[in-house]
Amino acid sequence: MTNARSIHLASRPKGAPTAENFRLEVHDLPDPSDGEVSLRVIWLSLDPYMRGRMDDGPSYAEPIKVDGVMGGQTVAEVIASKADGFATGDIVTGMTGWTTHATMPADGLRKLNPDQAPVQTSLGVLGMPGMTAWTGISELIGAKEGETIVISAATGAVGAVAGQIAKARGCRVIGVAGGPEKCSFATDTLGYDACIDHYAMDDGKAMAKALSEQAPNGIDGYFENVGGKTTAGVIPNMALNGRIAVCGMVAWYNGANMDQTIPLPLVWRTILTKRVTVRGFIVSDHWDRFDAFLSEVAPLVQSGKLTWREDVTEGLENAPETFMGMLTGDNFGKTLIRVGDDA
Amino acid sequence: MTNARSIHLASRPKGAPTAENFRLEVHDLPDPSDGEVSLRVIWLSLDPYMRGRMDDGPSYAEPIKVDGVMGGQTVAEVIASKADGFATGDIVTGMTGWTTHATMPADGLRKLNPDQAPVQTSLGVLGMPGMTAWTGISELIGAKEGETIVISAATGAVGAVAGQIAKARGCRVIGVAGGPEKCSFATDTLGYDACIDHYAMDDGKAMAKALSEQAPNGIDGYFENVGGKTTAGVIPNMALNGRIAVCGMVAWYNGANMDQTIPLPLVWRTILTKRVTVRGFIVSDHWDRFDAFLSEVAPLVQSGKLTWREDVTEGLENAPETFMGMLTGDNFGKTLIRVGDDA
Repeated sequence: MTNARSIHLASRPKGAPTAENFRLEVHDLPDPSDGEVSLRVIWLSLDPYMRGRMDDGPSYAEPIKVDGVMGGQTVAEVIASKADGFATGDIVTGMTGWTTHATMPADGLRKLNPDQAPVQTSLGVLGMPGMTAWTGISELIGAKEGETIVISAATGAVGAVAGQIAKARGCRVIGVAGGPEKCSFATDTLGYDACIDHYAMDDGKAMAKALSEQAPNGIDGYFENVGGKTTAGVIPNMALNGRIAVCGMVAWYNGANMDQTIPLPLVWRTILTKRVTVRGFIVSDHWDRFDAFLSEVAPLVQSGKLTWREDVTEGLENAPETFMGMLTGDNFGKTLIRVGDDA
Repeated sequence: MTNARSIHLASRPKGAPTAENFRLEVHDLPDPSDGEVSLRVIWLSLDPYMRGRMDDGPSYAEPIKVDGVMGGQTVAEVIASKADGFATGDIVTGMTGWTTHATMPADGLRKLNPDQAPVQTSLGVLGMPGMTAWTGISELIGAKEGETIVISAATGAVGAVAGQIAKARGCRVIGVAGGPEKCSFATDTLGYDACIDHYAMDDGKAMAKALSEQAPNGIDGYFENVGGKTTAGVIPNMALNGRIAVCGMVAWYNGANMDQTIPLPLVWRTILTKRVTVRGFIVSDHWDRFDAFLSEVAPLVQSGKLTWREDVTEGLENAPETFMGMLTGDNFGKTLIRVGDDA
């Protein structure tokens, strides 16, 4: 019998998650029933949205149950199959959660072709984060040649793809990231025209000034990942008919940085006088456009025009600490846990 | 020679306008040159947008120059004409400003047919306020049968039309207005399903509770005219895929009521988790849709399904005081100054 190790939600966090909110459990892996497969996980994706699911307040997704396995997408190898079309040795991606092994219905799994691209890109540039980036840039902002686009969390799993898509569309692209190393990566490797280090900005006013220098004609599109002083600096710089795609606000998660903001009346005034559109989105509402995403982004990946960076931590037991660090910006690129060896 | 009396901007207001910001001037009315007409004003429209033009900060329109005539739309009679197509006795509407008489190019004037509807409706339900209402309800909110729509300044020149258009589309329509008299008018005469008296609400939390009782399934569309505690109460009640059309924020004009708000992080959170769209608009961007507006709203006026109320003050010299009162909600219906007798 195979032992499966899983990370469970031990308790709901109050503010920032701590180690006590997670618990490692070991159990026997059941054999698959009809229509099911057993999986050995290779890669686990860690993503900021998971923080919201740890709460039970109103959000866009079902909360994880206390004592339940932490949810998440992985790449895994089929080690036993009672499902048509799935054979031992197949590499798949699906929502196994934070675990080394899982036995589950084959329905929600998608088979990967390891010859086309590294399998973990299904968790990154060619998966949910890439699709999220494309949805914001293409469907909500509608970035057009010559426009000025600002991307926060500019080197993150979503932001890095968003910035490169905007660049490929002929936009002037300004990143906001934490620290000189990430900013250099944004301009030197990802091709951003400029990158502002938010650690070097005291507050929203300083951020506004820095952005106005980089976007003298205003910001046509803002891809919102962070909130906080970045948002406070972006709003006053929005151009006429500007668009803001609200994808996340990691600076404000856990109830943090609530003082890094600007008064709503000033936001509303900008929305009115500049005829700005602000729209929130969740990638899962847009899966019907996955083919349109692939048709724009897969060629950029295959031609090498779109690059990405992975931030890999070894071992499932390190997932909680890596996750907590990601929420405060410790990660640099797409956050992955190496759970098992390649097939 | 005819004497023209005009109200000029004497100085820019600091906060709420006062009588000292306005000055009455008398001058001789010049004769028209080629292409011009001379006009005797009958009706002057007072509208909240005029407050913004008294400032010289960034806004959606050119500021009025200090010492210049206050801008505004009127209905007037042609008393002399050197313009093709315009004859003495014609009734027209145009941007003469706050004045009893004007000599100006005929280009920007539109002739009215007094037999079709009272001429002052060109300043109200069938003019800019009506078109503003329709643009918000139709073009931005896209109100659909069965949806719940909230209208602030529910009995104002714009709000009253917005509410009645939404009602004609089969929506549940909830008004917010100041005082029991306006609320009774909203439900009894305008046909709102409910109306909340914002004077009876201590703060945004009280407003949120009252709205949640009237909109148990959430608010699909919000027509924003006021800001303040109404906005603070609406945001937490927005339904999935809700739309907010930002048309004005009179409670926050003059820098007032800045404490009647909710923190931006909570607004952003609602926008994200409920996939809300917030969009500011200015009716002048949408004039190309004027025919579509008329095709929906003119039949409602002609059939008597859409009613309106006028708040008339006699005499141009009373325009400043009436305008200042309108900004604090003293008006009840479409604010008009009766400048001269009917033709």
